[in-house]
Amino acid sequence: MVELAECFLPVEDELRALEDQIQRELQTSSPALKSLVSHISGYAGKRLRPALVFLSAKACGKDVTADHLRLAAIVELIHTATLVHDDILDGAEVRRQVKTVNAIYGNQVPVLLGDFIYARAFAMSVELPTPDASRVLARVTQIVCRGEIEQIFDRYDFELDEAVYFKIIEAKTAELYAAACELGALYAGAEAVQIEALARFGRKIGVAFQVIDDCLDLIGDEAVVGKSLGTDLEGGKLTLPLIRLGATCDLLERERLKALVIEDGVLDRRARLMEEFEIGPALDYAFQRADDFIREAMVELEALEPTSARNALRNLAEFVLCRKK
Amino acid sequence: MVELAECFLPVEDELRALEDQIQRELQTSSPALKSLVSHISGYAGKRLRPALVFLSAKACGKDVTADHLRLAAIVELIHTATLVHDDILDGAEVRRQVKTVNAIYGNQVPVLLGDFIYARAFAMSVELPTPDASRVLARVTQIVCRGEIEQIFDRYDFELDEAVYFKIIEAKTAELYAAACELGALYAGAEAVQIEALARFGRKIGVAFQVIDDCLDLIGDEAVVGKSLGTDLEGGKLTLPLIRLGATCDLLERERLKALVIEDGVLDRRARLMEEFEIGPALDYAFQRADDFIREAMVELEALEPTSARNALRNLAEFVLCRKK
Repeated sequence: MVELAECFLPVEDELRALEDQIQRELQTSSPALKSLVSHISGYAGKRLRPALVFLSAKACGKDVTADHLRLAAIVELIHTATLVHDDILDGAEVRRQVKTVNAIYGNQVPVLLGDFIYARAFAMSVELPTPDASRVLARVTQIVCRGEIEQIFDRYDFELDEAVYFKIIEAKTAELYAAACELGALYAGAEAVQIEALARFGRKIGVAFQVIDDCLDLIGDEAVVGKSLGTDLEGGKLTLPLIRLGATCDLLERERLKALVIEDGVLDRRARLMEEFEIGPALDYAFQRADDFIREAMVELEALEPTSARNALRNLAEFVLCRKK
Repeated sequence: MVELAECFLPVEDELRALEDQIQRELQTSSPALKSLVSHISGYAGKRLRPALVFLSAKACGKDVTADHLRLAAIVELIHTATLVHDDILDGAEVRRQVKTVNAIYGNQVPVLLGDFIYARAFAMSVELPTPDASRVLARVTQIVCRGEIEQIFDRYDFELDEAVYFKIIEAKTAELYAAACELGALYAGAEAVQIEALARFGRKIGVAFQVIDDCLDLIGDEAVVGKSLGTDLEGGKLTLPLIRLGATCDLLERERLKALVIEDGVLDRRARLMEEFEIGPALDYAFQRADDFIREAMVELEALEPTSARNALRNLAEFVLCRKK
């Protein structure tokens, strides 16, 4: 069992400085905005993406600079903005045990708050010495939105296959992981081969992370995971375990599965899925695919010299898998 | 009576090229996104902001370049993104709207579509030869969001005074007008004194535009204005005519006004406001304030040499006022 604190050991100081940086960047003279900003500080997650920025720089044998601190804050703010907007998407009521902004203010305020955070992040990226970060992050944000839109359009589509699923989660989740690693290495002045290897590393652990997340939506414990679960199933999103279940069960079972996903007003879809279907093998398959991505990610790290930072990235990849337990 | 087509005469070709530019920039290989993008082409408004970009360049005696075309598209896309996000409704309201795209996808798709358009606009700004546009537009987007959030927080606040109202509308509307003028002049290589005068010109006509818009929300004809009216009143937004009415009527009337704005389930607030209150003088006052801003805006144009473009800007300012008729 990998502990996150252990993975973060080589960048402990940087992650502490990050918290100050984020606070500073979100300072505002507007009382309305101030109350919202203090509210979303409750959204603070594991800071995985900022850690990837810092670790990627160090894993290339370079120093973490003030640019990295800014980059890490930008990447985390973009992630935060997507979370704020995700809450509108799913009608989720609990995010990391904090009441969502829309539950308190209606939908208009979280939309504007997310927009504000995005704009703040872009404004910060413009202040970096080169336009690479602005370019990468504006591109990635478009890809994230495209991925999320495609996933919504594909809801309730039982013809959705694994290839399309993986394309969607790469867009909506993995690209930002890739960008965190790529930019961390790039702004450290690393070599192209290292930058590219780290971008692929980030993309692969991002895909694995999302696969695990999608499994946890079906079998996780809300108290442990720290957010509303069962929302994919409730929203008709066909994630890997469901796609696999549909592809491997018999025709009759497939019809029953369709009905369970599609029918209005089913009381506890998650519980019924577990009771009425043999979901175990499909989940095992999904976990195995996540495992495959993590192994591939680790191979990418071989492009780097062995350092404590490289080791931490390896552990971090391992950690992504541990979330299933 | 000023015709918009007349104001646009010196930049007719540029505005035609703009339509192609916007289409080209929103091209996508994603079928889901493509269907949404074609949907928002219906949002195409008067193209006031792009016209300001072009006219500002020409009014400084400079040529309109490919950069201006890009700038104009960026500014219009940012405006479009705010419109898309303005349409986000609260759960209850969504249910009442039956046959819209929102009814099919809920609020999810418009939020993501708006985010995508913002990100596209920022990505385009990064491709300009200097970071000025990225810097200005990321800053302005934050200000717009802050202004809109503050307006929401100030709903139903009968203590709201004119100074705060003007601060809010400057943020939520006028700053983007100012940016359009400023960037048009800046990317034409104009002198600082011209750039600053045009920024102030844009800000002033933007404020006037919003004041008129707020008056039309109370007295406009939906068929003429081309959008739902009475929504500010319905949402408890205290705009200039209401603030003025509240500040000038007697105490008893003020209580009746409060009740009309605050009470749930009032059937036709707009009609009742007209019938039960002497709103005329408050509207006249608001129009006069808009007129003042337009006169001040015109003074700013004196920093420029007389050209057909400067004349067009003058006419455009006049046009903003004509909307009341």
